[in-house]
Amino acid sequence: MSSEEVQTYLKSADSAINRHKERAHYDVETIHSIISTTPVAHVSFIPDPSNPKPVVLPMIARVGTFPGDAEPAVYIHGYVSARLFRPQTGRSEPATRDSDEGLPVCIAATKIDNLVLALTPFNHSYDYRSAVVHGTATLLDPGTRDDPMNRDEIIYAMRLITDGIVPGRWENSRVPPDEGEIASTRILKVRIDSASAKIRAKGVSDDAKDLNDEKTTGRVWTGVIPYVEVLGEPRPAESNKIAHVPEYISGYVREHNEKAQVTSKGGLTST
Amino acid sequence: MSSEEVQTYLKSADSAINRHKERAHYDVETIHSIISTTPVAHVSFIPDPSNPKPVVLPMIARVGTFPGDAEPAVYIHGYVSARLFRPQTGRSEPATRDSDEGLPVCIAATKIDNLVLALTPFNHSYDYRSAVVHGTATLLDPGTRDDPMNRDEIIYAMRLITDGIVPGRWENSRVPPDEGEIASTRILKVRIDSASAKIRAKGVSDDAKDLNDEKTTGRVWTGVIPYVEVLGEPRPAESNKIAHVPEYISGYVREHNEKAQVTSKGGLTST
Repeated sequence: MSSEEVQTYLKSADSAINRHKERAHYDVETIHSIISTTPVAHVSFIPDPSNPKPVVLPMIARVGTFPGDAEPAVYIHGYVSARLFRPQTGRSEPATRDSDEGLPVCIAATKIDNLVLALTPFNHSYDYRSAVVHGTATLLDPGTRDDPMNRDEIIYAMRLITDGIVPGRWENSRVPPDEGEIASTRILKVRIDSASAKIRAKGVSDDAKDLNDEKTTGRVWTGVIPYVEVLGEPRPAESNKIAHVPEYISGYVREHNEKAQVTSKGGLTST
Repeated sequence: MSSEEVQTYLKSADSAINRHKERAHYDVETIHSIISTTPVAHVSFIPDPSNPKPVVLPMIARVGTFPGDAEPAVYIHGYVSARLFRPQTGRSEPATRDSDEGLPVCIAATKIDNLVLALTPFNHSYDYRSAVVHGTATLLDPGTRDDPMNRDEIIYAMRLITDGIVPGRWENSRVPPDEGEIASTRILKVRIDSASAKIRAKGVSDDAKDLNDEKTTGRVWTGVIPYVEVLGEPRPAESNKIAHVPEYISGYVREHNEKAQVTSKGGLTST
């Protein structure tokens, strides 16, 4: 399946949403956009299949299709312990060659839009958007200076992740990465086996029995409190030598904050 | 170990932080505060040990010590599939009786404080605080109307979670929950087996080779962009009958936003 042809991910036993089906989404655009606009994703894996205990760690995740690949993949960056790959291969080297199966992982990205205050604690909720990807991870092994591997794809992923922090940042920083930086960068490429998103955007939903009880409605305020992630004023490092914050940064901060407020459908408080 | 006596969690093979040890924290206060101030945690588990694939889902997590318990536990609320408990018991009923082992889970809560823009993509980072708990989950089974179970603890956890959304919300909503609400509420109690936190708060950290290169420092702005979660102006539900937003809500919004700005050590942009 190519990224142009496939507009939705297949439902699988892993990804099918069985509760609140009206909140389920399987389209590529929704799933990718949730992942790519969330600063931190949570990646779970099983370090030791002989002692099946899950681990979940925060990492940066971005979706992209490496030129030549038929499908989009999730590229994740964070501290990747060698132990992630040991169980798959039975050896201490990472599982990166095509013959290796890779490591089953699950990636979740979640954005809270509103705190939802209903009449009863039971009906309290969040409006939110979440995406969950089930996939298979392999480490993009850089090889060695004499026997380099995956260089183009590692640089592709580093750029995807850097521009995912601030668009345009890659070409406005010192690039390309040098040999030592590439050798030390650990990027996981996750083949997407199945994926789904769940979106709640309905605000307060109370039960008739409470809505019809004037003692309750006369006492309990109900509504939503927007939960908004904003970017603050950029603060230069002590070692910074550039007099003004460049426009690609200040413009992005402005644009991010305008979008954040629209998305939450609410204005910021004037604190 | 009682919550008064224990000030730090024991390091275990699961929780020990082996990279960037200077960022590691094992004290109870740090770990609990990260979990309890994060609106959504990510909980991972293995639905089927015979086919070890991890799942991670967003849930609300709060730490509390139920009166009479010797230790604090993490109470988590979210959609809990029956499948979580089936593998543990070999039957379709939840694993809640003392004889059941419970389900191994891992809970992560992460807060981004700053986007960190360094001279090179390689040194880009986030300032962040994250907590990871390894534990064992059991479902607080409400039993039936005729044979009720765990009622006090379910209500304790519902209150902990409701007041975790907005402090004081419990007593300002329609309480106590009725029979149907208690029977439908799924709370997992997680015994904390080990836990750790990781905090990066050092801003930009560049390598000498780049700091000494005037071609780079003369071209690349470096610094941090605060990442701040703020609460917006509360918006009443259509069915709301209360004229003004109560002070316990508007005061909390104000206080939350003041604290968020101090924590990120930055002011909001004036968009």
